Amino acid sequence: MILVADNFQITHPIVRSALASGDPGQLNEWVRRIEAADARMMDLNTGPLGKGAAQKMTFLVRAVEAITELPLLIDTANPEAMRAGVGVARGKVILNGFSMEPDKLERILPLAAEYDVDIIGYLLDAKGRPPAGADERLALAVELHRACVAAEVKQEHLIIDPVVAPLLWEDGRERNRAVLEVIRTLPEVLGHAVRTISGLSNLTAGARFSDQQMSMECAYAAMLAASGLDMLLLNMFHTETVRVARACDAFLSEKVFTWQTA
Amino acid sequence: MILVADNFQITHPIVRSALASGDPGQLNEWVRRIEAADARMMDLNTGPLGKGAAQKMTFLVRAVEAITELPLLIDTANPEAMRAGVGVARGKVILNGFSMEPDKLERILPLAAEYDVDIIGYLLDAKGRPPAGADERLALAVELHRACVAAEVKQEHLIIDPVVAPLLWEDGRERNRAVLEVIRTLPEVLGHAVRTISGLSNLTAGARFSDQQMSMECAYAAMLAASGLDMLLLNMFHTETVRVARACDAFLSEKVFTWQTA
Repeated sequence: MILVADNFQITHPIVRSALASGDPGQLNEWVRRIEAADARMMDLNTGPLGKGAAQKMTFLVRAVEAITELPLLIDTANPEAMRAGVGVARGKVILNGFSMEPDKLERILPLAAEYDVDIIGYLLDAKGRPPAGADERLALAVELHRACVAAEVKQEHLIIDPVVAPLLWEDGRERNRAVLEVIRTLPEVLGHAVRTISGLSNLTAGARFSDQQMSMECAYAAMLAASGLDMLLLNMFHTETVRVARACDAFLSEKVFTWQTA
Repeated sequence: MILVADNFQITHPIVRSALASGDPGQLNEWVRRIEAADARMMDLNTGPLGKGAAQKMTFLVRAVEAITELPLLIDTANPEAMRAGVGVARGKVILNGFSMEPDKLERILPLAAEYDVDIIGYLLDAKGRPPAGADERLALAVELHRACVAAEVKQEHLIIDPVVAPLLWEDGRERNRAVLEVIRTLPEVLGHAVRTISGLSNLTAGARFSDQQMSMECAYAAMLAASGLDMLLLNMFHTETVRVARACDAFLSEKVFTWQTA
């Protein structure tokens, strides 16, 4: 699994401060820490960005690309900010993302065709709600795929996110079992390989951080891996979860494995 | 997954000492520690036991059953010791186990019919070797199933062990991917549900214990769970592995889940 850092968020004080001051240097240490945790991609979760969204996104993408060469996920629901981000980026970017919500189909999805880049499609219905069962999710995946074809987005640019549910939800576990099933069965349903991504932090949203939370993350990360997940979005500072995710790769990949002797 | 302790082994000094002295009281603390780690079954790995095997097994089963009510796996390749163990046990036992090796088919398997108990069937060929690929393993599972039918062992008494390989083996990871596939596809191949068990400690055999070893155990335990494993044999004192295995159950079972507030 490709590990994607979810640590860069607009709510983080350093990110807010850099944006407010216009000083990109403030981001140096934060971005380097995320990179040093061995992330292979970084999600720029900027939110809608409000007034001056395009300029703000331009500032953030330029600032981050000046520090790291990691591919970036441009994570905003604001089409203007999204266009600014993908337009200014010099390196590889992924649009994060669209769903069957009309605004996103009309204003986000076409950017993937225009800029010829990957785009994440969420298994959310036209009202932005995640369906409970695996069958409804698989039906939505087919709809997202059709929307890509209609928008002339290349089939191989679509990355499906089946939407992990918080375990605090009464039916959270059932939903997360459905997520595993969706990942396992998507290639068969679509009739071709398709990349998948899951956001692990959703799982423990609202829960006090604890050993139990870490164990739940570790367990679910490995079950996602066993189900065939391609990209895992997570807090790269959760050391044990990262270690377990890497261990899954050691099992599932063809790379040479050795026990560390250090 | 039912967690089965693999901690009770004839090589352990306490077990050797209790057996040599004939004092069952020496086992009290050790067995209670295993039970307190929240094992749901305990493997009595006695080895062949040599001279006086039947008496020794009788002593051990009586001693352990005096301390705990956990179901016991009688783990020996010695048919006399196996008969003594299953014969003397008052509680639930599982025979561990048989394979396509002629001696085991002839002398161990019939005990499962005679005493009407569960028996573990290892996916090992007639020479006791584990085949590398999933297809050969599945073919062996069909052979084990036929052997049960021939020996009049009830179909539901068979528990399949696809034999986890040490990661130190050059093809260890390929073999362990095959194990996951076998667990996932067995019900389809046999045409009915069948219980499965895996011994997790095999994975890290020969490796120095380390954080990496623990992460590999955690990762593989969760991948086994995601593949549908029923029983996991492991070192119950590997706290993090046990926590992750329990977390998998929290995802996969229908039991009520709550975040611990302690």
